[in-house]
Amino acid sequence: MTITRRKISVIGGGFTGSTTAFMLAQKELGDIVLVDIPDNENPTKGKALDMLEATPVMGSDVQVIGTANYEDTKDSDVVIITAGIARKPGMSRDDLVTTNAKIMKSVTKEIVKHSPNCYIIVLTNPADAMTYTVYKESGFPKHRVMGQSGILDTARFRTFVAQELHVSVEDVQGFVLGGHGDDMVPLIRYSNVGGVPLSKLLSDEQIEAIVERTRKGGGEIVQLLGNGSAYYAPAASLTEMTEAILKNKRRILPSIAYLEGEYHFHDLYLGVPTILGGKGVEKVIELDLTDEEKKALEKSAASVREVMKALPKE
Amino acid sequence: MTITRRKISVIGGGFTGSTTAFMLAQKELGDIVLVDIPDNENPTKGKALDMLEATPVMGSDVQVIGTANYEDTKDSDVVIITAGIARKPGMSRDDLVTTNAKIMKSVTKEIVKHSPNCYIIVLTNPADAMTYTVYKESGFPKHRVMGQSGILDTARFRTFVAQELHVSVEDVQGFVLGGHGDDMVPLIRYSNVGGVPLSKLLSDEQIEAIVERTRKGGGEIVQLLGNGSAYYAPAASLTEMTEAILKNKRRILPSIAYLEGEYHFHDLYLGVPTILGGKGVEKVIELDLTDEEKKALEKSAASVREVMKALPKE
Amino acid sequence: MTITRRKISVIGGGFTGSTTAFMLAQKELGDIVLVDIPDNENPTKGKALDMLEATPVMGSDVQVIGTANYEDTKDSDVVIITAGIARKPGMSRDDLVTTNAKIMKSVTKEIVKHSPNCYIIVLTNPADAMTYTVYKESGFPKHRVMGQSGILDTARFRTFVAQELHVSVEDVQGFVLGGHGDDMVPLIRYSNVGGVPLSKLLSDEQIEAIVERTRKGGGEIVQLLGNGSAYYAPAASLTEMTEAILKNKRRILPSIAYLEGEYHFHDLYLGVPTILGGKGVEKVIELDLTDEEKKALEKSAASVREVMKALPKE
Amino acid sequence: MTITRRKISVIGGGFTGSTTAFMLAQKELGDIVLVDIPDNENPTKGKALDMLEATPVMGSDVQVIGTANYEDTKDSDVVIITAGIARKPGMSRDDLVTTNAKIMKSVTKEIVKHSPNCYIIVLTNPADAMTYTVYKESGFPKHRVMGQSGILDTARFRTFVAQELHVSVEDVQGFVLGGHGDDMVPLIRYSNVGGVPLSKLLSDEQIEAIVERTRKGGGEIVQLLGNGSAYYAPAASLTEMTEAILKNKRRILPSIAYLEGEYHFHDLYLGVPTILGGKGVEKVIELDLTDEEKKALEKSAASVREVMKALPKE
Repeated sequence: MTITRRKISVIGGGFTGSTTAFMLAQKELGDIVLVDIPDNENPTKGKALDMLEATPVMGSDVQVIGTANYEDTKDSDVVIITAGIARKPGMSRDDLVTTNAKIMKSVTKEIVKHSPNCYIIVLTNPADAMTYTVYKESGFPKHRVMGQSGILDTARFRTFVAQELHVSVEDVQGFVLGGHGDDMVPLIRYSNVGGVPLSKLLSDEQIEAIVERTRKGGGEIVQLLGNGSAYYAPAASLTEMTEAILKNKRRILPSIAYLEGEYHFHDLYLGVPTILGGKGVEKVIELDLTDEEKKALEKSAASVREVMKALPKE
Repeated sequence: MTITRRKISVIGGGFTGSTTAFMLAQKELGDIVLVDIPDNENPTKGKALDMLEATPVMGSDVQVIGTANYEDTKDSDVVIITAGIARKPGMSRDDLVTTNAKIMKSVTKEIVKHSPNCYIIVLTNPADAMTYTVYKESGFPKHRVMGQSGILDTARFRTFVAQELHVSVEDVQGFVLGGHGDDMVPLIRYSNVGGVPLSKLLSDEQIEAIVERTRKGGGEIVQLLGNGSAYYAPAASLTEMTEAILKNKRRILPSIAYLEGEYHFHDLYLGVPTILGGKGVEKVIELDLTDEEKKALEKSAASVREVMKALPKE
Repeated sequence: MTITRRKISVIGGGFTGSTTAFMLAQKELGDIVLVDIPDNENPTKGKALDMLEATPVMGSDVQVIGTANYEDTKDSDVVIITAGIARKPGMSRDDLVTTNAKIMKSVTKEIVKHSPNCYIIVLTNPADAMTYTVYKESGFPKHRVMGQSGILDTARFRTFVAQELHVSVEDVQGFVLGGHGDDMVPLIRYSNVGGVPLSKLLSDEQIEAIVERTRKGGGEIVQLLGNGSAYYAPAASLTEMTEAILKNKRRILPSIAYLEGEYHFHDLYLGVPTILGGKGVEKVIELDLTDEEKKALEKSAASVREVMKALPKE
Repeated sequence: MTITRRKISVIGGGFTGSTTAFMLAQKELGDIVLVDIPDNENPTKGKALDMLEATPVMGSDVQVIGTANYEDTKDSDVVIITAGIARKPGMSRDDLVTTNAKIMKSVTKEIVKHSPNCYIIVLTNPADAMTYTVYKESGFPKHRVMGQSGILDTARFRTFVAQELHVSVEDVQGFVLGGHGDDMVPLIRYSNVGGVPLSKLLSDEQIEAIVERTRKGGGEIVQLLGNGSAYYAPAASLTEMTEAILKNKRRILPSIAYLEGEYHFHDLYLGVPTILGGKGVEKVIELDLTDEEKKALEKSAASVREVMKALPKE
């Protein structure tokens, strides 16, 4: 019985994909395969080699390869999908959905073919609809396909609260439900600083301003960068989900999970609190919601369903 | 007596600068200031904010800011210079030297003004000549100004040896003297794998091939990327030097150090083994060299001096 | 300006003291001085040397020395007091208090003499009274003298909740006020799992059982060990407080802090939520308490005052 | 396919065993089972619970249990044997060997029964003979049974060199062959500081003094402690071997390995440089030795064989 390393494939070698690959390598979570399309094969190989050449200095003992060949992803334990296009000026949302859905189907076919037992984490936007697409295409059980959105949203929320109160980010907890960004449903009463409810520490106005900034958090970075979107915090979020699975941590983390009756939704992928461990999404945690929260979550779900209308029919 | 965090400024918000800032933040080595020119102020702020938003997930407790205002670098403990242009097709080497030297002088003025007690690490190419320029402009004592090249070269060397022998990078040591890249002088007899001399493990042909690949290591990445150059391994190297200083480790690491008689060179910055600690370059370690090694080192030094001819006169 | 390492002295080379020293060394938080009485000088030197000999393997770059000479603690940034006797069968509580108070006074004199600017963290039992004694003897401002109890109590609480729910300890937050152990006042409504209030996840009976087990948590270990008391979790708690100070984190952590009107108490050291950073106890966080919680906290304070009656008069 | 944690059992709950368990837990290398005899079951449970209660503070997500029941070790990936008695005043060496060999046989039976596919690392003294005993009793292939001695010896050597030169322990490499302690064969020409041969940095007298101190390194700690022997550095060494296997690192590390012709020895366990990875001892690295080194190694081997004479016959 040889003890082998875990293996993680990251589909999409752009900023988020490559930063994720680097962070996974730094944490020695397993050998890394960074995959992009044949046109980008050389740059992807270049980034991977550059990362590998950083490992002696970082004291990290993993392989990192770049490739355009899905055979290299064979028997991955976790596959992360960051591939896809960003919405360009003049592009309709439906065009974005159609294009990325096509990409999801194509990469999922390859993933499933080479790693039939893997766990898949989807980042590509719009994440709820894309995770749904990957789920359907994969034929995998629901616990093995999930999306990222809530860790990133709460990370931003936590950052802004910590800045406002001038305390450590380590002691700020946030909590969101629902879709990513604008459709986010923050649960302030479940947010706290070292256990102390947020409402004891910040005024309603302060909280509202932080929630608003969090909702627009992705856009704030896009606007500052001028060209492109956030990748450090998204990569950290994907790394945390991967670690929870590979180390079977049973973390309580927000995931985009498949709902079959939870929160009264059916056949829908939506951001909810989950237990994330060695079986992937081991459980969706259901919370009692206030009427207001219910309404906000329904609005969020409706918005996801609206986006999903543009998904190509089977 | 309030205990304050260390402060590190990274000049140049490109790939290497921002990756270095991120790695320093991950290691909680201090608060980070990422500086770029006013034209890039917003993207720099965007990258820094994105990094900051990753800190709650990474469990890292530092500030990261982006700025075009050197006042924000006030009282830095360490300043890392990655600013400068890359050589473009059609650009003569002298033009590169002239342009980057101008940039070095300009940023050094600002650094010295706001952090008169800091340690400066230079990455900008050609690194030996640029470190010399920064040294002269700063008026700092020599132990507080140094350049990076050898950690990166040995990191690549170590990677290739580890791949060839299929062993851990952690147990491969390499050793280089002299200029960066083509001018590198590898000391094979000081290179080993777990203490075992390289020559016992690899044939002369294998070693020669690895040395050659290391020499061209920067170019290999440039060619693969198609656009741009390596940044992960350079950032890891800068992080290691910064850590050695801030934690007063007295590491034995190759640095571009000012020579005043060591190895028979005078008034020259060149890659040599050093003791790197809380006083910066605490010592240049002098080794007995074979005639062949001496000749190679002289060639390397001559090449640096040749480059330095293009430096603007005071 | 040479960059120096932080320096931490641990008074008392028993299990807790030496485990704390080891954890501080592992985290590279600074150079470590482990101090015990002259009769124990050699064993203390032996433990410190053994730790030092572990540093090459751990990749940790600090000095660790054992000594009976307080001059070696000169200019420590943080001093941790674990010295003192444990209550023996047949010993009255007052005898314990009297003996340990005498030890506190004696070690505090030495600490103050050699490190007049340090921060002091007290672990010795009964911790509230002993922290008070050290404070008075030191003449230090209140923010520089604090005691540990709440991190340990909440660590046990978090462990038991995580076990019961079979989830990651990382996502369980607990919250206690008041004295250590039996006098602990758990604030269940401020305890949560991934933001979800405990009361949604566990029955009242389950919570009550966990609270009860936490209260007796120290005793449970004492009884199992047969000889001696807990040291791993106490050492981890002391390490976390030290790190919060040395890295100026401004963590929200429970500390035994000096109260001057907070929670209506005066001239009393008691376990309360605090902001812990580069100025030590930067703030006591005051919470609205229910009548029941107020009563419990008053009972806890009364119990501390009762213990303090046995303190030797000045 | 559920992703499970690695599992590591540590046999012997004394200082070395429990410190090893704690370090493995800190590194999140897997779930930990600490095993001792029924008479020590409660203290072992107490230590394990204390460690577990430290995990929330350390941010480490593993289970730690103490037990006297080998069924709890079922399906361990790695089993570490620290059980056994220490030599008491008046005890003959043969008595020590006989007693510990009996213990080895008894624990090996249990290990093999519950974890037929595990890797076994032996620390119990005299380690060479005890590893041989475990190997024979286990019926395991040789690559799955190994002993620790060289990492500890080199750790001490590295510490003393770093102290002498006042440089970082990270950059000092040492190299030993042969038996533990007195029988150690240091290969000075394979020892270096940042690649620079030791002989360029220290005089023969200094090196001889360091070698001598390393040889007696275990005794130095025993004498200082007065009661008991080193456990921090041994635990760090065991942790490093375990990590090399569980992360399939293919480290170059000294191990006590089974020789079948290597260095001209047959049917002998002796300290040699090895490649340690996911297959355990993947290779013994053979070095050209000088006549003097050969003689020293033969003396060391003879000494091991002499000890082995006291092993009970099958």
